Amino acid sequence: MDPEDFKQMAKEAIDYIVDYIESVGNRAVLPNVEPGYLHHIIPKEAPEHPDDWRQIIPDIEEKIMPGITHWNSPMFNAYFPGGYSYPSVIGDLLSSGIGCIGFNWLLSPACTELEVIVLDWLAKMMDLPDFYLASSDGPGGGIIQTSGSEGILVALLIAKHKLTRQILENDPSLDENTIKGKLIAYSCDQSNSCVEKAGLLGSMKTRLLQADNAGRLVASTLLDAITQDKENGLIPCFVVATLGTTGTCAFDDLSEIGPICRREGIWLHVDAAYAGAAFICPEYRYLMKGIELSDSVNMNPHKWLLVNFDCSAFWIKDRRYIQEAFSVDRIYLRDRGECIEKWAPDFRNWEISLGRRFRALKLWFTLRLYGVSGLQDYIRNHISLAKYFETLVRKDTRFEIVSPASMGLVCFRMKGPNMLTSDLLKIILESRKIFVNQGKFGEKNFIRYVICSRIMCKDDVDRGWEIISSHADIIRPKQSLDCSPLLIESSTKFNQWNQKREEKIIPR
Amino acid sequence: MDPEDFKQMAKEAIDYIVDYIESVGNRAVLPNVEPGYLHHIIPKEAPEHPDDWRQIIPDIEEKIMPGITHWNSPMFNAYFPGGYSYPSVIGDLLSSGIGCIGFNWLLSPACTELEVIVLDWLAKMMDLPDFYLASSDGPGGGIIQTSGSEGILVALLIAKHKLTRQILENDPSLDENTIKGKLIAYSCDQSNSCVEKAGLLGSMKTRLLQADNAGRLVASTLLDAITQDKENGLIPCFVVATLGTTGTCAFDDLSEIGPICRREGIWLHVDAAYAGAAFICPEYRYLMKGIELSDSVNMNPHKWLLVNFDCSAFWIKDRRYIQEAFSVDRIYLRDRGECIEKWAPDFRNWEISLGRRFRALKLWFTLRLYGVSGLQDYIRNHISLAKYFETLVRKDTRFEIVSPASMGLVCFRMKGPNMLTSDLLKIILESRKIFVNQGKFGEKNFIRYVICSRIMCKDDVDRGWEIISSHADIIRPKQSLDCSPLLIESSTKFNQWNQKREEKIIPR
Repeated sequence: MDPEDFKQMAKEAIDYIVDYIESVGNRAVLPNVEPGYLHHIIPKEAPEHPDDWRQIIPDIEEKIMPGITHWNSPMFNAYFPGGYSYPSVIGDLLSSGIGCIGFNWLLSPACTELEVIVLDWLAKMMDLPDFYLASSDGPGGGIIQTSGSEGILVALLIAKHKLTRQILENDPSLDENTIKGKLIAYSCDQSNSCVEKAGLLGSMKTRLLQADNAGRLVASTLLDAITQDKENGLIPCFVVATLGTTGTCAFDDLSEIGPICRREGIWLHVDAAYAGAAFICPEYRYLMKGIELSDSVNMNPHKWLLVNFDCSAFWIKDRRYIQEAFSVDRIYLRDRGECIEKWAPDFRNWEISLGRRFRALKLWFTLRLYGVSGLQDYIRNHISLAKYFETLVRKDTRFEIVSPASMGLVCFRMKGPNMLTSDLLKIILESRKIFVNQGKFGEKNFIRYVICSRIMCKDDVDRGWEIISSHADIIRPKQSLDCSPLLIESSTKFNQWNQKREEKIIPR
Repeated sequence: MDPEDFKQMAKEAIDYIVDYIESVGNRAVLPNVEPGYLHHIIPKEAPEHPDDWRQIIPDIEEKIMPGITHWNSPMFNAYFPGGYSYPSVIGDLLSSGIGCIGFNWLLSPACTELEVIVLDWLAKMMDLPDFYLASSDGPGGGIIQTSGSEGILVALLIAKHKLTRQILENDPSLDENTIKGKLIAYSCDQSNSCVEKAGLLGSMKTRLLQADNAGRLVASTLLDAITQDKENGLIPCFVVATLGTTGTCAFDDLSEIGPICRREGIWLHVDAAYAGAAFICPEYRYLMKGIELSDSVNMNPHKWLLVNFDCSAFWIKDRRYIQEAFSVDRIYLRDRGECIEKWAPDFRNWEISLGRRFRALKLWFTLRLYGVSGLQDYIRNHISLAKYFETLVRKDTRFEIVSPASMGLVCFRMKGPNMLTSDLLKIILESRKIFVNQGKFGEKNFIRYVICSRIMCKDDVDRGWEIISSHADIIRPKQSLDCSPLLIESSTKFNQWNQKREEKIIPR
């Protein structure tokens, strides 16, 4: 592909992206394809000779788009947001266009150094403790990782290495493997699945402790578990506290959990993947009270800060622990002898992969082209839209709020047995008009509705609620509340709908 | 940033990228900055209000470019190539522009399914065993991961889980932790550093066995280690064989190693990160003889197949082992019940991170717009350029070849003590005109020269050699060979050069 063809095709791609994003609300948010649809329409083998590049963009629209779930649609209200903004797209474009791989400082000083700088910017915006800043006197600092999953796994592995070493230093006669087998990690049963996965991958026993009624890990629960485990010969090593759980966006109380970890010599990692973005607004910082007791923290700009995946920010109070746990030296990797500069670290020792893209560019562009005030407006708008959605739910007596709007998330359900909520979700999803997803807390199934799209406004929330409530009519007409014969009738209505559905080939 | 501003800025970025790439050979390949240069010229904090987007591209040229190591320069001959091509850049652009996150099938069926399809394309191009194909009858398949490091760690964790489970099934009275502590992994001391790191991260003892004179892991060495370890009560679990080592691009003999692994019930992973790309040319497939005895394999299109980082292909013979080892279920992650379709897997269970970009697009575009024949031409050109470089080295009697050109790599050194080669490397790097790096094999230090740039030609090789050999004149003038007084004189000359160098402020 020569430079002129590239320019033309890339510019067509730019136009395509704008057309797509600006009109994404007109597409059904969920695709209408069956598993395996694509291999029926794509050749079985790569072409022997080059295809015509003019065919690529049409193929995107004809073959790929039917299989896309539109994360940027205002009707995408499942999961948490997939960060997206125009400045970020350009940042990624320049990252690809420059094409450097920055695993050592020398392999592109700017790639490493800009990352250190913008993570300092971000930490200051969130008012994280000074010790996380490269510009502080201490040994702390930040890095961009692929995901919160990676950050939590890295933190777990560091905690494991640090504690094992400490125990061995106190008593060199102990067996390293025996110590490692006794280490144990804690988190709440409402924490993200990646905490459990980190335990699995990092070979550390992990206890998911029962949340309180508000979906939080409570200090007494943690303390009981620690006491019990110590009595059983285990060694508490690692705690993940969550600020903004996936299920209900609950906030563990760091000011209670922190002192326990400090006293017990347990590494405290804070997972603020989604809700951490809100700390750029001073009025939400009370939710991270106690953060000064943490050892590491992650927050994903690629969730709620308009930066495209992947861009997960990870800070550590003392980066020397990373280097000790992760460093593997080879002659071809050495470029600066022993000199580890605070503004110019060798990030290959901070993460799982050796290679790394110039991801700081998209974060830099987003922070510069929105400005702190622009990002605060964006966060506050999402939070107010979620509150507005909650008022709509509360007006409909068939529904109940499971947990009040927290950040951009509202958890609600149909009053009565779980089946009603599950059935409602089923028919909503099959309409493909809105994408919400299911949660479960205690015995109750509920629906998670999240404000996701960057361009979302009040009208979109109204439209979303209209879709949900009109589908609820199939399950339980408005007048049916507390009226058993009508409930039976509506159930019959749902069964008829369901039967009709089974008779045709179902999309998805 | 409104859509029109985005279009304008993105198109300027496209023009900037073309200008940069097409003239990259005119820039000094290595930057002329000191560690920490960037934080002196970037504000300490994010702006409160949006910056003007028109300032961004000028900032790239003024502030970022001075700190870029030009991976695409024909004078970048260190490490292995950082994949780059115009089709790939556009693929990444569309991936960002669409902005989907595809961890479950439903979250964008096309994102998952295209990945399965293009990995089948790639496996067929390389003539990998049928069992790695999704289109075969078996349970095998491929995935795109971030890096070879991730692939090897994933393979190690699967092997660990599989063998532990198997042992426990045979004797449930055993202690799981004790078993895990006895597991051991093997690789060659010439394998990539990520193998050792995988052992560190995955908590498995790892033995790096001594290579033979050709830099390969030999069957008898492996067998001796296994026998010895079994006698000592350890349990051999995992072997990483390398096709194309980082140091000298040596190829372990799978047809010897494979049968041992098979007999001993050891998981055999093949790391073909760089050289695997050459298997798209039939004439190099003899180097992977025995691949049918492997359990998993990784190859990085983001190295030598013109795809931008990150795009590491990983295939597994039986994907059920991945799912067993990695699966962590949550209600909000379920979307298709038990149905795991071969063309529509939930890739979140195949890797460390939950979130994932639409990376298949850039691989798809690259394969389509080059075609198999175009990529073969590219590989063959690199290999012939490396051979040509070798002939240039051989003509200069001051030098010796450490290992003959293998793929795009030539390893050479100055005859005599290591210091000569190290000194030569030092002054070459400080000239910033060419970027080569150091290797060590046995007692010998050497210089690695790799054909990296996509646009590299014979003239570039001539120019590179001219830079290297003219710098060698500082160390040892051409006529000085085997002439001690002259050697002393040249050494004096180097010392003078070095002293002069110390007197000024040295770049880097």
